[in-house]
Amino acid sequence: MHTVGDAARIGPMRAREWGERAHNRRLDGVNERALVKQLLGRPDGAVSVSGWVETVRDQKKVQFIVLRDESGAVQLVNPATRELPEGEAPTAEASAALALTETISHLTQGTFLTVHGELKHDERVKLGGVEVKITTLDVAAPALPENPIAVDSGLDKRMDWRFLDLRQERNNLIFRVQTTLEHAMRTYWIERDYIEVHSPKLMASASESNAELFALEYFDTTAYLAQSPQFYKQMAQSAGFGKIFEIGDVYRADPSFTSRHATEFTSVDAEISWIDSHEDVARMQEELLAFAIAAVKEKHGDDIERLFGLTVEVPSLPFPRIPLAEALEIVAARGHEILRADGDLDPEGERQISAHVKEALGHDFVYITDYPAHIRAFYHMRDEETGLTKSYDLLYKGVEITTGAQREHRVDVLIEQAKEKGLDPAGLEFYFDFFRYGVPPHGGFGMGLARLLMLLLGESSIREVTYLFRGPTRLQP
Amino acid sequence: MHTVGDAARIGPMRAREWGERAHNRRLDGVNERALVKQLLGRPDGAVSVSGWVETVRDQKKVQFIVLRDESGAVQLVNPATRELPEGEAPTAEASAALALTETISHLTQGTFLTVHGELKHDERVKLGGVEVKITTLDVAAPALPENPIAVDSGLDKRMDWRFLDLRQERNNLIFRVQTTLEHAMRTYWIERDYIEVHSPKLMASASESNAELFALEYFDTTAYLAQSPQFYKQMAQSAGFGKIFEIGDVYRADPSFTSRHATEFTSVDAEISWIDSHEDVARMQEELLAFAIAAVKEKHGDDIERLFGLTVEVPSLPFPRIPLAEALEIVAARGHEILRADGDLDPEGERQISAHVKEALGHDFVYITDYPAHIRAFYHMRDEETGLTKSYDLLYKGVEITTGAQREHRVDVLIEQAKEKGLDPAGLEFYFDFFRYGVPPHGGFGMGLARLLMLLLGESSIREVTYLFRGPTRLQP
Repeated sequence: MHTVGDAARIGPMRAREWGERAHNRRLDGVNERALVKQLLGRPDGAVSVSGWVETVRDQKKVQFIVLRDESGAVQLVNPATRELPEGEAPTAEASAALALTETISHLTQGTFLTVHGELKHDERVKLGGVEVKITTLDVAAPALPENPIAVDSGLDKRMDWRFLDLRQERNNLIFRVQTTLEHAMRTYWIERDYIEVHSPKLMASASESNAELFALEYFDTTAYLAQSPQFYKQMAQSAGFGKIFEIGDVYRADPSFTSRHATEFTSVDAEISWIDSHEDVARMQEELLAFAIAAVKEKHGDDIERLFGLTVEVPSLPFPRIPLAEALEIVAARGHEILRADGDLDPEGERQISAHVKEALGHDFVYITDYPAHIRAFYHMRDEETGLTKSYDLLYKGVEITTGAQREHRVDVLIEQAKEKGLDPAGLEFYFDFFRYGVPPHGGFGMGLARLLMLLLGESSIREVTYLFRGPTRLQP
Repeated sequence: MHTVGDAARIGPMRAREWGERAHNRRLDGVNERALVKQLLGRPDGAVSVSGWVETVRDQKKVQFIVLRDESGAVQLVNPATRELPEGEAPTAEASAALALTETISHLTQGTFLTVHGELKHDERVKLGGVEVKITTLDVAAPALPENPIAVDSGLDKRMDWRFLDLRQERNNLIFRVQTTLEHAMRTYWIERDYIEVHSPKLMASASESNAELFALEYFDTTAYLAQSPQFYKQMAQSAGFGKIFEIGDVYRADPSFTSRHATEFTSVDAEISWIDSHEDVARMQEELLAFAIAAVKEKHGDDIERLFGLTVEVPSLPFPRIPLAEALEIVAARGHEILRADGDLDPEGERQISAHVKEALGHDFVYITDYPAHIRAFYHMRDEETGLTKSYDLLYKGVEITTGAQREHRVDVLIEQAKEKGLDPAGLEFYFDFFRYGVPPHGGFGMGLARLLMLLLGESSIREVTYLFRGPTRLQP
């Protein structure tokens, strides 16, 4: 023990030494562990791999483990030692070999472990052309023997055990694709001097509509969860930020159970100043998407082909544009009768117009434009001649993934439009203030990340591509 | 008008033409507008700039406007035309000149406008060495004449009018720095094969503690807002994701009003598998921070020097480490008596130990390690010999910005530790399940983005560096 005086003097010296000692160790994914995908490129010899047990083949003379980690799967092999030599004192080596064989015989699927062993390249090994002969095996955490789900379990069951479901290689790939997609989008924006914002999700009033709003007790008042970053994206325009983006969670108290809806989802939003019309927004978005999808194709195209059986198609620019009125005619001509009365496309109508565009132009995307004001938000700018909004929906493979628009920035017109929609202007005063002290013409879009990912990978539900889905009856795990 | 048959045939043709026409226009920030920072590099001649009015000097013979955009400020000039020539019919040109002068005389601060004019390089112009002689001026949205805040307004008043406060060049810079900082961190991780996740913020139970928890009605049940992504970061380890990160909002119903607390804040989180101890986490985090701060220095170092009067210092590696017990002795030796009874550092203690490290080692960061179990979360792993947790706090310039730890992955030990903390294991069953089907040793950290940014820029409160702060009495704008 040292005195207080010693501590004051010695403290930082020891601190530095410790730090240096720590740093002399190798930081390689994180320690001396090799990732499975690195094995093929390594020479034969000593190696350490960590992962979880996918299968065990416990044959009489030899044992095989397929071990998976986040990068792939590899075969581990152990010549079984079933009994000690009779009639002589067992060597430590023989006892260890017996114990190792026993351990492997009792391994359960899903157990996480580290193996030190000898790497050997062997073309006959179908799984990756290498195998590891086990020297020692350390179990980090054994798995309960009964795996509650199988690959063919229903979606709801798989969601109950999402952490096991995500161990599938294809599910792991989904989130690698998402990572690449997001990073590419952010890179596109940041290279063009966009500012990233994190707008608050706790609000004093609704951000989009009074329906589908989650409310919570907030000290002495009530707060609401943001349904979109809409108002605060626009605030950035008034703040002179010029061009901004946000990727963050938003909330909808939406009781529907479709494959495209969730109560909490990640929204990809951008908003830009000094536009001439929504067309400037659409042009930015199509460049962004082509850039991001190209990045996904480059990094994961082969894996997607292998695991999802589809070829990622980088969309050509520009995306086709069709005014809504024309889209409705085309859909009618294809024999689909739209039953909704508001004059908007219904989900089947969206599929039909996308099918038409795919057949006629070979394109997966289509902008539907020129929506009438009565089916758009109050803050969409309207064309002075036609009265139609300066807005679009973007459909991808038959599903709407985005609404974009130029915003009405003239505060008197904006207030009138809010009143016309039956909104109480009093609750929106804080928002109208953004326009009263000067604001540039501006517009932007919001896009559901999960919808984009679902369609890109040909999945049937956003639940498949959401890390942990939230719906009306789904709050766990 | 064309028939339905025509529409079906013509639709996509027109769509393609429209798209191509649209694409022939230039996409340059977004339209033909020049950013102020580009002016110095452009030749004299016709130019268009857009921004907001910072000041107007309305002299008898000449008018000056300082126009600011997201990239800088430029002087606009107009030779005043105060009256039409007497005794002759005014030319259209003379009338326009008179009208322009009138318009400028009535411009209010904050008005957003576009000017077409003639760029002229002139070294005598202090503001950037260029000026623009106005040809035409189009007001996008006039500002109300009374600016409700001034640069020296109090923080609370400025937060009431945050969108105006953010027009200050230094505030704009804060969010450019944040953008660079985040992008650098994400890039560091993505280059090392980390997966980005978006964990749900709606939960069926508390993520950290039952105190400071926001609750909301969720259809037929109650949901809680996540206080951290802790459990779901760990779930990714059980899912075999290996290395993950998340930058997202979290919520604390914390009634305190300090400069370091908020009810909603952006948390920077990472979690990695197959670590040997918390030291692996600390080593990753210090590399990450050095990388990200270096990126900020490179991109914004000069602007930070100019607007914040400080030099960004890229920290050397490794950061110093001091065990808590030793830190307490050092602080005591410096004459600070810690009044809290739990044996942790208090805020002044954190300042003292950081001051000590700065004086002795010239370092802004210090890891405080080896915390006793009673002041750490139940999921921190404990050293089997000492009983101390395998965890750290990271202090930066005297303020705690991070807690990091190796997690207890042995489910029986974990459950015991939860019980010991008085938690009801029943509410944590979904979390314990993550460990029952196999899990690797793992650890990670959580870091408050605003705290990091505040300290990096030498600001006094996270409110200054948060886009829209949320506190017990602050839900608007």
